Amino acid sequence: MADEEGAAVSVDDLAYDALLEWIADEVAPYVGEGRVADYIPALAQVSPDRFGLALATVDGRLYGVGDYRERFSLQSISKVYSLALVMARDDGRLRGRVGVEPSGNAFNSLIQLEYERGIPRNPFINAGALVVTDLLHTLTGDAAGAVLDFLRSEADDHTVTIDGAVAASEAEHGDLNLALAHFMAAYGNIENPVDVAADHYFRHCSIAMSCAETALATLFLARHGVRADGSRLLPVLGAKRVNALMMTCGAYDAAGEFAFRVGLPAKSGVGGGIVAVVPGRAALCVWSPGLDQHGNSVAGVEALDRFTTATGWSVF
Amino acid sequence: MADEEGAAVSVDDLAYDALLEWIADEVAPYVGEGRVADYIPALAQVSPDRFGLALATVDGRLYGVGDYRERFSLQSISKVYSLALVMARDDGRLRGRVGVEPSGNAFNSLIQLEYERGIPRNPFINAGALVVTDLLHTLTGDAAGAVLDFLRSEADDHTVTIDGAVAASEAEHGDLNLALAHFMAAYGNIENPVDVAADHYFRHCSIAMSCAETALATLFLARHGVRADGSRLLPVLGAKRVNALMMTCGAYDAAGEFAFRVGLPAKSGVGGGIVAVVPGRAALCVWSPGLDQHGNSVAGVEALDRFTTATGWSVF
Amino acid sequence: MADEEGAAVSVDDLAYDALLEWIADEVAPYVGEGRVADYIPALAQVSPDRFGLALATVDGRLYGVGDYRERFSLQSISKVYSLALVMARDDGRLRGRVGVEPSGNAFNSLIQLEYERGIPRNPFINAGALVVTDLLHTLTGDAAGAVLDFLRSEADDHTVTIDGAVAASEAEHGDLNLALAHFMAAYGNIENPVDVAADHYFRHCSIAMSCAETALATLFLARHGVRADGSRLLPVLGAKRVNALMMTCGAYDAAGEFAFRVGLPAKSGVGGGIVAVVPGRAALCVWSPGLDQHGNSVAGVEALDRFTTATGWSVF
Amino acid sequence: MADEEGAAVSVDDLAYDALLEWIADEVAPYVGEGRVADYIPALAQVSPDRFGLALATVDGRLYGVGDYRERFSLQSISKVYSLALVMARDDGRLRGRVGVEPSGNAFNSLIQLEYERGIPRNPFINAGALVVTDLLHTLTGDAAGAVLDFLRSEADDHTVTIDGAVAASEAEHGDLNLALAHFMAAYGNIENPVDVAADHYFRHCSIAMSCAETALATLFLARHGVRADGSRLLPVLGAKRVNALMMTCGAYDAAGEFAFRVGLPAKSGVGGGIVAVVPGRAALCVWSPGLDQHGNSVAGVEALDRFTTATGWSVF
Repeated sequence: MADEEGAAVSVDDLAYDALLEWIADEVAPYVGEGRVADYIPALAQVSPDRFGLALATVDGRLYGVGDYRERFSLQSISKVYSLALVMARDDGRLRGRVGVEPSGNAFNSLIQLEYERGIPRNPFINAGALVVTDLLHTLTGDAAGAVLDFLRSEADDHTVTIDGAVAASEAEHGDLNLALAHFMAAYGNIENPVDVAADHYFRHCSIAMSCAETALATLFLARHGVRADGSRLLPVLGAKRVNALMMTCGAYDAAGEFAFRVGLPAKSGVGGGIVAVVPGRAALCVWSPGLDQHGNSVAGVEALDRFTTATGWSVF
Repeated sequence: MADEEGAAVSVDDLAYDALLEWIADEVAPYVGEGRVADYIPALAQVSPDRFGLALATVDGRLYGVGDYRERFSLQSISKVYSLALVMARDDGRLRGRVGVEPSGNAFNSLIQLEYERGIPRNPFINAGALVVTDLLHTLTGDAAGAVLDFLRSEADDHTVTIDGAVAASEAEHGDLNLALAHFMAAYGNIENPVDVAADHYFRHCSIAMSCAETALATLFLARHGVRADGSRLLPVLGAKRVNALMMTCGAYDAAGEFAFRVGLPAKSGVGGGIVAVVPGRAALCVWSPGLDQHGNSVAGVEALDRFTTATGWSVF
Repeated sequence: MADEEGAAVSVDDLAYDALLEWIADEVAPYVGEGRVADYIPALAQVSPDRFGLALATVDGRLYGVGDYRERFSLQSISKVYSLALVMARDDGRLRGRVGVEPSGNAFNSLIQLEYERGIPRNPFINAGALVVTDLLHTLTGDAAGAVLDFLRSEADDHTVTIDGAVAASEAEHGDLNLALAHFMAAYGNIENPVDVAADHYFRHCSIAMSCAETALATLFLARHGVRADGSRLLPVLGAKRVNALMMTCGAYDAAGEFAFRVGLPAKSGVGGGIVAVVPGRAALCVWSPGLDQHGNSVAGVEALDRFTTATGWSVF
Repeated sequence: MADEEGAAVSVDDLAYDALLEWIADEVAPYVGEGRVADYIPALAQVSPDRFGLALATVDGRLYGVGDYRERFSLQSISKVYSLALVMARDDGRLRGRVGVEPSGNAFNSLIQLEYERGIPRNPFINAGALVVTDLLHTLTGDAAGAVLDFLRSEADDHTVTIDGAVAASEAEHGDLNLALAHFMAAYGNIENPVDVAADHYFRHCSIAMSCAETALATLFLARHGVRADGSRLLPVLGAKRVNALMMTCGAYDAAGEFAFRVGLPAKSGVGGGIVAVVPGRAALCVWSPGLDQHGNSVAGVEALDRFTTATGWSVF
């Protein structure tokens, strides 16, 4: 593996399967650590001892270890795809309604909205993702359906679906997101009825996919915007921008720490998943339900840290 | 140049000089735009029509265009070097005293310090750089001297010096920084006398260097921690971390926008300079005194945007 | 009238009618100044040239000038009565759910709720009044009805009613209040369904009364808790507490300025009304629709300022 | 004493000495509770079991109980006198530099200064008192001396003095106040050198007086502006305004709670003293060093609560 004082080992020399096995061994002590998301019953039931890791390369190979075929709830990871789908359709309209700056910290979520008159700081905080979903709904007539169709297509598996129990549970415990949505509506930044926008948001966050499927579905960002079928979803600059947003805003209030340790564009979800992009090379997805205080998978962060340290594939 | 819909042009095909000339032509309309920093007289006197751009590659070549040999005031760019010098000496001690997260926005500078009991959010906001300077002073006995020595050595020019008029002017108009320093001292996070720490901070920010010198002095971050003389300043992971911090926190309150447009680790200063790192390849420095509302050089951002778009050398 | 340098003129010497006429003359230049509330159409239609002032004394006399018999929308003034009705029934339960401190300024409304985990700072900011209404609804089964019944009884006029057009308009433009209510519900501080609590809040704010009726209905606070029929609504300490809250929190973000100028417990509403209490002596209500930047009636504040300066009846 | 459900007992019927004795008995269990201010050694040495209470009436009588002749450190109580002295000299100039609104809570002190560009919210928060002291220094050439002279004269005791040990200790631990002062200086709201303004502030806060002396020195506010020698310091409206500020901003972040419980204009200090005004009738000073979480004397608040409940002398 890489020598901290020396140059990174060439990845050409690595057997990927062996690498993933080594990572799984290394992070085994962390699996089960942290706290499984329990704000809705459907998520709280997931066993904390799960761990899966999948690597999909731009030349079409897929590697995996552990529970990498088991589906989990995407949660905030789905915000990457709704964002990409909106940018593909009407990037300009989005720019006026959502910023691109890191949010500082959790504490600032509402003050920021108030201070900046209803314009969320970036598309990955909940307020921003609600606006993205609202605009995607306006553009497609079915925001959650558009995200689902895209993911089914990229993962090449039409059994991918929305977990209805999770979606219902999100809606039932959705006061905080409804507060954000009503607040933005007061400033004219939600154009569909608040309950419609929120419903589509809750639903695309409740899509269940495996690490393997999620890595495959995220390859378009490693391919600079090109989908699995070879068609282009985003221009090169558009893919660069999504990656940049993932780097600066993708790990909740710990984006700086994540960039500092892992150094890849990534997006985490409270379901315990983290998807990461190695531009030009690969996409990874890791899953383990125990979360740290910021909402990022404990074992997941450890795994990605080891991955970039071993391969030298950090963008820095 | 690069086709937005296609792959980036190979940089191997580019004549660097021609590339820099093209960029200088492209951004000429932006030179003179924005507002020259005027909070101290010494900076306000600089002519707004200056523009320089230098590129230093890890294999030792240096390219430049425009006023790339003219010295300007580093200002916040110097925070990169004081940080690296502290990390090289006592990284652990620094971690407890300064965070690594983006600060959200200017508005939050003091509330954040208050909310987090005197721990600055990252080493590039003024409060964080004051703590870094304070620790560097403890570790070396002469913080400003340590930064100056390092820069002279890397730039291979012992005429690099602190502009005494700028430093005196900073001290005279330093109430805001003194407020930050006293506030942190109240929480025990400044260990030297406040006026000593502030003085060394004002002085290393007042170092004057040219684009050529600054690009050379920043190459150690492109070389994953290795200095001009081949010795190692930082471990590979240390250099990665400085780069990550530059990416997430280097452009004041516009770090997200900068990552979004340019996609390189970078640090700007209100003297109009911006230094950027292409890990493994090169360091760039651009200078033009007109600043946008966030304090970043207008023509400088335009130049770096064109550079990464043309070369595809963004990390994303 | 009072000599600023000397003692206040004894009110025994004043003919109240002459005093009110003098005040009306004095403030005539201010009537029409400011901006009529226009966030809902029903309020925007009110003519800005209205001015009424009524004084009700604890010994049963009523004086008035101008449009003091014309009904206007109570808006936030109704928060005084819902608060008193809850304190009369279950003061202890209220104390755990709403604070008694001034809110600082408008800017802090949401940050405060977030920082203090869903506990509104006082019962007169919208968030606090929503909690009061929610609790009144739990205690009575009909919060808006309870407020209406109380006001009809105290004003001795059973034609007092809820303006249905205003209430409907409030609900239609109620996103900000729904945001606050959902946010508090997320912290468990709204116990009825959010839309039910909000509906009763919108309705009691939409009660229409005249200055004469409002002054009469507020006399219980001047009588230290005793209602028009001689029965006690609140203990002496309870009435003192409502008066104290009106003094420190009754004039939106200008409570300090109001105390500074007028020096009486008071509550204003964006309908242009202000009710004030002279403990032990009288209650006043003034109405003029033009509002200052804080939402307080311009001519209303001027009138109350002159009233306390002339009579020396400020509590200070 | 007063019956909560009935009218207050007439104070004419009370023997004041008996009343004060009764209060001292009632609050004895609270004496020693709370925490003695320990941010500077000089204050930390005071015995927590002290309790004194003095009442001075406008007709010239003085009553006391317990340690009412023992001197303690005025601390923030001195802000009342520096404010009155500035208002007497140049009220208009003060209005542009300090607000009159409650500050919300401690948390907001710096954000408020930042948000409102260096204008403190009111004259009783430290930032505001620093501006008042700065202006008093400009107007008199010796701010601390002006406060001391005034207090000696009103208390009729020329042995009242500044405790040099406390003042030195304040200066040594003054980083937070220096931070505030430099921050305001950055916005042009401190006109003397920061260290001069801060030094005079530290010194007038370090004046030591007894409850008896403090009650006498505060009678000018009960006399609507008239000093002990019959001369007028402030116009009637000026005294009313100081009283109003004490009511809305006098008890740190618990001004609302204090108004709610006690209902008198008052100012507390971390030395354990609280001075209160009964307009037209009397001034009180209570002292007991144990502080609650807001910095107000635990036994002191209890004593004033009982005083107003028993006498019915609350302004509400």
